[in-house]
Parts: sequence; C-alpha cells; structure tokens
Amino acid sequence: MDKFRIENCSDELLCGIDGGGTTTKVVVCNLEGQVLDSFQSGTINHYGAGIPKVKEYFAAIAANIIEKFACLPGTIFTGNSALDGLADDALVQELTNGVFHPSKVVFHSDVYIALLSFTLGNPGAVLISGTGSMACGIDAGGAYHTAGGWGQVLGDEGSAYHIALKGIHAALHAYDGLSEPTMLSASVMKFFDLKKMSDIIDKIYNPPVEKGVIAAFAPEVERAAEEGDPAALHIMESEAEWLYKLALAITKKCITQNLGYFGSVLNHNHRIRSKLSALLAEQFISLQVPRFKPEIGALIGAFRESGHRVSDSVIDNLLKYR
Amino acid sequence: MDKFRIENCSDELLCGIDGGGTTTKVVVCNLEGQVLDSFQSGTINHYGAGIPKVKEYFAAIAANIIEKFACLPGTIFTGNSALDGLADDALVQELTNGVFHPSKVVFHSDVYIALLSFTLGNPGAVLISGTGSMACGIDAGGAYHTAGGWGQVLGDEGSAYHIALKGIHAALHAYDGLSEPTMLSASVMKFFDLKKMSDIIDKIYNPPVEKGVIAAFAPEVERAAEEGDPAALHIMESEAEWLYKLALAITKKCITQNLGYFGSVLNHNHRIRSKLSALLAEQFISLQVPRFKPEIGALIGAFRESGHRVSDSVIDNLLKYR
Repeated sequence: MDKFRIENCSDELLCGIDGGGTTTKVVVCNLEGQVLDSFQSGTINHYGAGIPKVKEYFAAIAANIIEKFACLPGTIFTGNSALDGLADDALVQELTNGVFHPSKVVFHSDVYIALLSFTLGNPGAVLISGTGSMACGIDAGGAYHTAGGWGQVLGDEGSAYHIALKGIHAALHAYDGLSEPTMLSASVMKFFDLKKMSDIIDKIYNPPVEKGVIAAFAPEVERAAEEGDPAALHIMESEAEWLYKLALAITKKCITQNLGYFGSVLNHNHRIRSKLSALLAEQFISLQVPRFKPEIGALIGAFRESGHRVSDSVIDNLLKYR
Repeated sequence: MDKFRIENCSDELLCGIDGGGTTTKVVVCNLEGQVLDSFQSGTINHYGAGIPKVKEYFAAIAANIIEKFACLPGTIFTGNSALDGLADDALVQELTNGVFHPSKVVFHSDVYIALLSFTLGNPGAVLISGTGSMACGIDAGGAYHTAGGWGQVLGDEGSAYHIALKGIHAALHAYDGLSEPTMLSASVMKFFDLKKMSDIIDKIYNPPVEKGVIAAFAPEVERAAEEGDPAALHIMESEAEWLYKLALAITKKCITQNLGYFGSVLNHNHRIRSKLSALLAEQFISLQVPRFKPEIGALIGAFRESGHRVSDSVIDNLLKYR
C-alpha cells in the first residue's frame, strides 16, 4: 500500500470531518471557503465501530479525496464523537494508520466542532442536548471549558435519554402506587410492546439495551405533556431547568452571553426550548440557532489550525453549504 | 448417573434454600423445626452464574444432603435471586436437572422467602434495601403483592446503588458549577482513585462496571452526611422518602401495619432507617427487625408447601438457628 501512497498535499485545500456516532460527514473546501466536495462514510467512533473498521473508513475517505483532487488537503480537522477533547498524535496515527500523511491532522471532540460552527473560534458557548447532553465554550483568553457530558449513568440531565428515563420512572411509580396515575404508564406498555408491566425488566436488562433504545421514548413524554399529563409536564419543566443550569454554568465559565444550541431535544422539543429560552432571557443570555453545521465547524477548525483567516467572504461562501 | 440417583425422599425432612447473588445457603430441618444441617454453595442465580454452573451447584447440594441423611427432604423450598416470583416446573427442572427427584421442589423469589421469614406466611409486608430496593407482602386473602424492584436503570430508589449514584451526581454537579461545592466531589475522586474528575467516565463505562461497584460508594455519602455536608444530607432525606413511599404503597396494598426490613441500607444506615421509622410511625406502621434469616423463611415455605403447621414449638426451634 505504501508504494501508492500520495506523498504530497495541497495547502490550498482544507478538510473538515464530523465523526458522529453513526455516520461521518466529510467536506473539502478551498481557502475562499468554497466547498468543493462533500460525502459521507461509516462512523469513525472507535468505541462504536472498533479500530479496524475505523482504519478502513479513513482509508476510504483518503482514497475518495485523492481520487477527486489528486492530492490531500493541507489540514484535516476532525470532530470525533469518541473523544472528549484534543487527541494526541499517537491516537491520530493509530486510528488513521497514516493514510493522511503528510497532511496536518487534528482530532478533537464532536462538541468542539459544534462549538466552532457557532463561535467561529471566538468566545462563546454551545449547549447540546441529543441522546446525551453537554455544554462547552471558549473564553476571551481562548481557554476551552466544558460542563456536563458525563453519559447516561453519571448525568446527561436534560437529554433525550434523561427525559425518557424520567418518563419510564414516572410510569413505574404510578404503576406501583407511589404516585398519581399518569398516561405514561400506558405509553410505556405500548412503546415497549409489553404484555404486563414487569416485562419491561427483560426488555431493558436482558440483554442490556443501548441507550438509544431508552432515549427513543422521549417523544412519548413530550406527547403526554402536550396532552396535559401532570407527570409529563413536571418532567419537561425539570429537564428544562437542568439545561438552564448547564447553560448558566458554561456561560459563566466563558463569560459570554452567546449560546448556540444543537441536538434533537433542543431542535424538536418546543416546550423545553421555549422554557429554557425564557429562563435564559432573564439572565440576558440569548439562545441561538448556529448558522453552520458541525462539519463546517470542523472546516473552521482547519482554517484556524492552518493559520488562515475566516474572513467575511469565507463565511459567505461557507454559508452556501447545505 | 441416573443409576445412582436416590429414588426416595423423607416426608420427615424439609429443606430451605436462600439463593443469593453470590452464595447459596441451605438448611435442612425436621418437622419439629430442629435444624439438622446447614451449609453453603455457589450462587444458583443463573443470570449471574450461568445454567451449567447452577446445575453443578444443585447436584452438589443434593449429594451433600444425601450423604448426610441417606435420602432427600420431602419438600425443598428455594428463594432464588434470579426470579421475581414463582417459577414454573419447566424452569425448576431445567435448573436442577432432576437431582431432587422425587422431592417436591418450589422456586420463588429471594424477596418472597425474606417475606416468609418475617410474616411466617401471615399477612404482612417487608421492605428491602440493599444494592437494590423492593417491597413485597401478602394480604389477608393470601394474595402476593410487590412494589419497586425495577433494577438500577429503571428504579431502585432508596437502595445503596441509588444513594451512591445520587452522591456521584451531586459531586459532578458541584464540579461543573451547577450547584454549591460538596465534600462528595473529593470523596468521588478518592473512592474511585481518579487523577482528574473526567477520569470517572473511563472508570464507569469502559468497560461498563457492575452495579455493585457504584453501590459501594453509598457509605461515603452517609459519611459526608454525618459530617454535615448539605448535598449528602439532602440525598439521605430524599432516599428515606423514596423508601417511605415504597413502604406506604406495599402496606396499603396488603392492608397491613406490620413491616419488616432487610438489606444493608436499612441495617447499617441509621440516618435513613430512623428517618423512615419516624415517617412510618406517623402512619401507625411499625418498622421491625425480622426474627429469622431468609433461609429460615425458605424453610417456613417448605412447612407450608408440605401442609405442616408452623407451631409455636417449631418457631422456638427455628429461633435457635443462627
């Protein structure tokens, strides 16, 4: 293989990679920010896919770029959902198997490129609530801060997983007579296709389900809240308050009032987003839709890493990417 | 093997088995309740040990009894921590591989024999809080009721696992700046031997830890509460209230004011037990120490199953077992 490896790269090209939990998005642009190519590959999350698969996907990504451009981009910036911060060179080398040599390759977390897509590298913060929840930001001194992101056992308050779990708990409390009846008991029976409530034990533990299976119940909790179910409404209030606490903590750490948001809960759960917006507005913090997708955040990382300015015309060009 | 199988059993002997998550306790008595033999074997929880191991342990238990008594007990009553109720004959046959033939063999849950050890089969209820939490009871009509027991993901409020988890959550909330500082942050760092707080992610998820690893942190939360830490005190109050709700639900279902307790939290966490006792006393429910160990509860199950009365003299004899 080494014989055929392209041994040069072009400083005129930059690459951004968003390595999510299920797919990877790759974008290549020139120094004017014109996106020249974009494509998807399998997930490069090595906890999910395993290292051999990840090596395979990176080889395919490199081959794809070389086929199109006959060389590699000078800088490749990757947001990797398996990471919680900047990776060292040894890990980059292990996962990519050197297929990007001699390009400069940086691996950071997926939340970091989401942050870049909102702040373009300037001070600011983002709040993410999808299956999990987390906040991160950059302060005026350029320091990176995080809050939350502890995963489904240790935290993830305000996430789809947490909303769903609280909904299931409420259903079981009502079933046991620990609390007033709630629509959620019937929702749990139907959603998890149970003949009797105790069948949920086998569904959840035998074998242990992926967290996504539980998180998928979150829209049912929202539905019950829409229909006025008190237990579901209480969960929505409480989860919005968790996100508020997370938002306050990160904006305080970064001394910023700019907060972007990402993730299925904040995109689709209007009740939670509007409650959160209202709470934040009292603190003069505005919750904003980021202008760019995370893969463009990765490109912005590549601009910065290679010492190129993200000018207004670059931004205008990047905004054309959909 | 079948050639050597003892094909008779004595109606003069009864056997009780407490199949816990790590060990199995076996007791054999006569119809006067005099315990003639007791010994331990490996766990018969097939979720933990696997079916082949369980078959092996049952064969050893049968061999042990036959060696001592030259026959099998007429009735064998087993409380099995892998079950949440009465098992059907097919499962009993699968797990025992017929080694107890022709004895009558009954498999019920571990909480059921705990219940029998408190109520002797009369109406009453028990509350259990160890690694997990659950309540069960028998009403005046003989019907069996339960509440809780949903496991570490779906519930187990008031258990050591839940106390520990809430303690870890509190530590992380304080670390993130979502709440006031707490001693629990330092406790978590020390207990889980972390260099930096984010190392806890690897400790808990990679690979996923057994719930016992998390539950073992519960005494640290109690310690912080003893030293007056507000976050830890709040957890203790809240967990005691969960147990109170569970206790109220089960005593209401069983229409009883007799509530026995089992498990490490209720045995050792004085703060929780006294808070719970005080709350229950307001409802005229008395929280009591059961007189018997669960394996004696299994023997009582064997008495009842074989149609023998648990007379006062039987009770006096069983009380001699330690």
